[in-house]
Amino acid sequence: MASLGRLGILTAGGDCAGLNAVISAAVKYGTRLGYSFVGFKRGWEGVLSPMDYMTLDARAVSGIAHTGGTILHTTNRGRFAAKKGTGEGKGIPREILEEAKRNLSSLGVDGLIVIGGDGSLSGARQLGEAGVRVIGVPKTIDNDLAATEQTFGFSTAVNVAVEALDRVHTTATSHDRVIFVEVMGRNAGWIALKSGLAGTADAILLPEFPFTLRGLVDYLRARKATGGNSAVVVVAEGAKLGEHVAAEGSGASEELHYGGIAHAIMAAVERAAPGEFEMRVNIVGHIQRGGSPNARDRNLGQSYGVAAIDAYHRGESSVMVSLNNNTIVTVPLLDATSRLKMVEESSLELATAAKLGVFISDRMS
Amino acid sequence: MASLGRLGILTAGGDCAGLNAVISAAVKYGTRLGYSFVGFKRGWEGVLSPMDYMTLDARAVSGIAHTGGTILHTTNRGRFAAKKGTGEGKGIPREILEEAKRNLSSLGVDGLIVIGGDGSLSGARQLGEAGVRVIGVPKTIDNDLAATEQTFGFSTAVNVAVEALDRVHTTATSHDRVIFVEVMGRNAGWIALKSGLAGTADAILLPEFPFTLRGLVDYLRARKATGGNSAVVVVAEGAKLGEHVAAEGSGASEELHYGGIAHAIMAAVERAAPGEFEMRVNIVGHIQRGGSPNARDRNLGQSYGVAAIDAYHRGESSVMVSLNNNTIVTVPLLDATSRLKMVEESSLELATAAKLGVFISDRMS
Amino acid sequence: MASLGRLGILTAGGDCAGLNAVISAAVKYGTRLGYSFVGFKRGWEGVLSPMDYMTLDARAVSGIAHTGGTILHTTNRGRFAAKKGTGEGKGIPREILEEAKRNLSSLGVDGLIVIGGDGSLSGARQLGEAGVRVIGVPKTIDNDLAATEQTFGFSTAVNVAVEALDRVHTTATSHDRVIFVEVMGRNAGWIALKSGLAGTADAILLPEFPFTLRGLVDYLRARKATGGNSAVVVVAEGAKLGEHVAAEGSGASEELHYGGIAHAIMAAVERAAPGEFEMRVNIVGHIQRGGSPNARDRNLGQSYGVAAIDAYHRGESSVMVSLNNNTIVTVPLLDATSRLKMVEESSLELATAAKLGVFISDRMS
Amino acid sequence: MASLGRLGILTAGGDCAGLNAVISAAVKYGTRLGYSFVGFKRGWEGVLSPMDYMTLDARAVSGIAHTGGTILHTTNRGRFAAKKGTGEGKGIPREILEEAKRNLSSLGVDGLIVIGGDGSLSGARQLGEAGVRVIGVPKTIDNDLAATEQTFGFSTAVNVAVEALDRVHTTATSHDRVIFVEVMGRNAGWIALKSGLAGTADAILLPEFPFTLRGLVDYLRARKATGGNSAVVVVAEGAKLGEHVAAEGSGASEELHYGGIAHAIMAAVERAAPGEFEMRVNIVGHIQRGGSPNARDRNLGQSYGVAAIDAYHRGESSVMVSLNNNTIVTVPLLDATSRLKMVEESSLELATAAKLGVFISDRMS
Repeated sequence: MASLGRLGILTAGGDCAGLNAVISAAVKYGTRLGYSFVGFKRGWEGVLSPMDYMTLDARAVSGIAHTGGTILHTTNRGRFAAKKGTGEGKGIPREILEEAKRNLSSLGVDGLIVIGGDGSLSGARQLGEAGVRVIGVPKTIDNDLAATEQTFGFSTAVNVAVEALDRVHTTATSHDRVIFVEVMGRNAGWIALKSGLAGTADAILLPEFPFTLRGLVDYLRARKATGGNSAVVVVAEGAKLGEHVAAEGSGASEELHYGGIAHAIMAAVERAAPGEFEMRVNIVGHIQRGGSPNARDRNLGQSYGVAAIDAYHRGESSVMVSLNNNTIVTVPLLDATSRLKMVEESSLELATAAKLGVFISDRMS
Repeated sequence: MASLGRLGILTAGGDCAGLNAVISAAVKYGTRLGYSFVGFKRGWEGVLSPMDYMTLDARAVSGIAHTGGTILHTTNRGRFAAKKGTGEGKGIPREILEEAKRNLSSLGVDGLIVIGGDGSLSGARQLGEAGVRVIGVPKTIDNDLAATEQTFGFSTAVNVAVEALDRVHTTATSHDRVIFVEVMGRNAGWIALKSGLAGTADAILLPEFPFTLRGLVDYLRARKATGGNSAVVVVAEGAKLGEHVAAEGSGASEELHYGGIAHAIMAAVERAAPGEFEMRVNIVGHIQRGGSPNARDRNLGQSYGVAAIDAYHRGESSVMVSLNNNTIVTVPLLDATSRLKMVEESSLELATAAKLGVFISDRMS
Repeated sequence: MASLGRLGILTAGGDCAGLNAVISAAVKYGTRLGYSFVGFKRGWEGVLSPMDYMTLDARAVSGIAHTGGTILHTTNRGRFAAKKGTGEGKGIPREILEEAKRNLSSLGVDGLIVIGGDGSLSGARQLGEAGVRVIGVPKTIDNDLAATEQTFGFSTAVNVAVEALDRVHTTATSHDRVIFVEVMGRNAGWIALKSGLAGTADAILLPEFPFTLRGLVDYLRARKATGGNSAVVVVAEGAKLGEHVAAEGSGASEELHYGGIAHAIMAAVERAAPGEFEMRVNIVGHIQRGGSPNARDRNLGQSYGVAAIDAYHRGESSVMVSLNNNTIVTVPLLDATSRLKMVEESSLELATAAKLGVFISDRMS
Repeated sequence: MASLGRLGILTAGGDCAGLNAVISAAVKYGTRLGYSFVGFKRGWEGVLSPMDYMTLDARAVSGIAHTGGTILHTTNRGRFAAKKGTGEGKGIPREILEEAKRNLSSLGVDGLIVIGGDGSLSGARQLGEAGVRVIGVPKTIDNDLAATEQTFGFSTAVNVAVEALDRVHTTATSHDRVIFVEVMGRNAGWIALKSGLAGTADAILLPEFPFTLRGLVDYLRARKATGGNSAVVVVAEGAKLGEHVAAEGSGASEELHYGGIAHAIMAAVERAAPGEFEMRVNIVGHIQRGGSPNARDRNLGQSYGVAAIDAYHRGESSVMVSLNNNTIVTVPLLDATSRLKMVEESSLELATAAKLGVFISDRMS
């Protein structure tokens, strides 16, 4: 088979379940078409000097689709990290872009598949503007990218959180405790919302819907008054106490770096209602990112991987593959990361939770 | 709170994961609105004389959303079973419909939530035409209903199949065996397709894409010739051997009642290529139906349960709740079950599988 | 069947997987023999005035053996809590014992099955001395009771920890991080040891084997020098930093109440080797206690439940059921909780881990 | 480090969970001591001409301890298979033994670690008698070797069966069905017994305790008469219908090769009680062998692997490592496989099941 050229692949930003499914599918399909592959290690770091890469062929990606993490490693840090913002002087310095371009050229790499979040895709966009053919694959465990219907890793994270909730429920009930379970979600509360609803949480605290300490305490008291001695409260890591709390001097912020917002909220409840509730915190943590992806995330990763190659093969560049109505389309990288998808009052699961009496915020109770 | 009336709920047809999430959400939300509930046992049987039912309130549905099966029990059989077809004389006899209507009336039941497949919803439609207010909730583990984007239970079934595939893979590889794994899917092969792709099956045999024995054997031989000594073949229970096979006298059909189509296919391969492959069969079976639903199926069940009550509360009747673009809408029961959603060549996962070199049928290899 | 009398059952102390299996087996078997049962709620609290109890029969315990938690609820606190120590004035006040005795008598309860840890069994012993027939069932998630080979809940906790380790491994590797995973084990490190070995941790920090910060940092550096950029460190919650650490002013102790010892150790490593390692903490937490027990813990709980009834039926009292060489025997309650079973240098898994190069303490590396 | 010589490793017979943990531990520890390793592929086949082997070092076994299957592959067949029996002419032909010995010598292999069942260990014994230093590691998923307290893979298999039972229970109950679940266990019924008890089966049919069709049908009828419409019957693949059944002409035997004994028993019940029970069969199958081992099986495999190296290092030969009272000892290969460990009436779990009213055989009900 005639060689169609050499493609690079990298994974950047926080890991999540499904990365290896993308890599595997891209390499398997691309190899069938006639491309060869190099995998750059630890995100963009592998593209910069000194380069760090490995050859990827069918053998190298055999048996990895169901595994967690990324065989290419990744990092949240490094010289290529895109600066926040879009104004002048923002973005990746020209000399870094040139270095990357030079290195890719020296390896004979014609194009680059970048699997990453908004920061990495913004970097990919700039590299594209500098003349490198790049295809982006969206990666955010929080599923908060407006430009695609779903990102891989999210479904697995929700299910890991639900398994934790199922286990926590029996211990909360047996001990008549209030247990705060902190899950991922800094800007968007999708993991908290979907896992909280599925795990029949009594309250779900989301970044998008600030609540007051008074509202939460009143809810827990009302619940207890009608025999609900135990409660499970799901807390997104970006959950926000509303203004009344600050006024009451919760002092939550300075404690955050120790164990997360859930500890701060528990402490605030204890101060507001001393001795009323026996409380505990459980932070689900990194196990939401790692481990074997579920069927949905494997399928999604596989389809993204194949679609990225298809897009490159069709001659596209500076685009991101995106799930849209059960097909994979491409959108310009310029639009890809510009808008976030937040939980709204009309979101199906939020409306469902509210109708079932779950506490979301003062206003919605 | 003023009582808004009494609603009946029943589950009919084969069980699947998420039924209790629907029941739980409907009863919790409905109770909050002011409705009371009776649950009829074992599908339509509970509505017919002698009636068999239980009172459903918040306490009765507490802690069931994450459990498998249905607290109302179900059956595939009984006097209410809709006859196949749509012509005159088809459908449920008038006297049975009248008996059901009389019984509902005698209990003061104003409306009925029917959670079931095409047969049960067809019965619901006829009861609706006879003057009973009915709301349908779609249930098919195969996810083959065109009128809704997804049915609950399907996602759990796919993941159960994938877990089986993950386990089977290591034993297939260790023994250099060809293992046929039979999964559910009589008319539509969605479970086989999605689990087979996620579970990196080497071949996926679907009801929608007949294959020939020669095509399958050639594929397995070609695979072995390039070092692929083991193979995992996912077989939908409705998988069809194409005409060439029959011509070769596979005699598959008469063996089907023993252990499923996978045994027949394995036997046919053995006859066509005696001693070439060490083969085994694993039938995943009923564990695809039972057990705790995953997050997706709980969420979907919860939203359907709430939406069914909303539809009734708005005054609708003879409609089915349906997932459409991340919201729940209603569609007339008349249209609800008329069209099936089959795997097509353009289906995202099928296209992905084919591009990755998975054997689907002679034509697609 | 002639009634043989009425027995009480209670669960006390922290919950763990398998409590319902004990309750279920005791009630099912006892009922077959001719006993009737009451279940006291929330441990000893249910025995004291005002009493809180429920009738237990075959129906009440149907379908609970595989569930987590305890249908009887439990508490770590309350008036019956045994004071630490064995001297005069220690133990449960006479008036509390008399109150419990009076209440049991008023309900016609002839004997009591107490499922609990050392505190609760010490209380049971005193109640026995006060004339009540009591049978103890050992419960400690840490499996640290010398008087029995194994306690239920332990095996499930180990497997929950291993699942977390499996997930954490992929993210540690992908990010080249050192991740500290904190698991249960205040006095004895069995959960940390067995899960750490099974989860191929690089270091396992146990209460029984103090280590120095220098030792740990040297180990991590040596590992990194030979290409081991990532590491997984399992930390028992009772892990002890040796004296050298205190001398270096780690100040670990004052931080402990925030997020556990793992945070303190991570902070100490950062102070000792600033910027050398990218580190994270994951605290597995209460999910080790809750949720469905695995096969081993169900079997063990079932056998203990049956054996407790057998012991009572034979006329024994003030004894605890105990696993010994694959049979259940009874030991005097007096001896039952007097000795702990700690990890020793000769323990099979510790010896295995040390031979595989796992860091345990300075001396053993 | 001075080299201590070269060891071979092979895995033979049916795969089970934990094989890679043994391999990994042996190679890691042995390498630390100063040995080097070759792994022979597909059991004894890899030792015979043409040899098939791979170099095993720390890198080759990195990250495999938690994986299913065996990286060395295995087979149940081949020229080295020991003939059944112990008389003259039985065992492995002298020329095969000589060929193996010659090949080992040509590779500079000083000793051999054989991980296998009774057949493979018998072969190892004969190779030992022919002058090769061999250490055996016991492998039988059925846990039926009298010479060791437990074999790896067994605990995982039991838990896989229990997960299937948990799922099957909800569907059996929802449909009021009798479901026969067939699990592994040809000679000894340990998997059926432990999983059946933990999975609260209503009947457990074991190779060691023949039952009559009449006894089983009477039990199911009695259960139904008291409201137990559904039942879960666990069937070991070696379960035996007693003589009365044959007299009734069940004709079970000729059907066995299709779907297992469970189908035959179901068919026999249907003939004996036509239409009385709605029945289904679920065969758990190979998923009991494959997939990631649980904590227990990893720990056991790791300790066996280390102990095998220790034994060799001490100068032992023709012995098998064996778990005895929480330590690993060695026993002569001559004794290792001579006695099976069967379920007896006094076995803890059997006594527990019988006291809980589970049907085992006519005599014990």
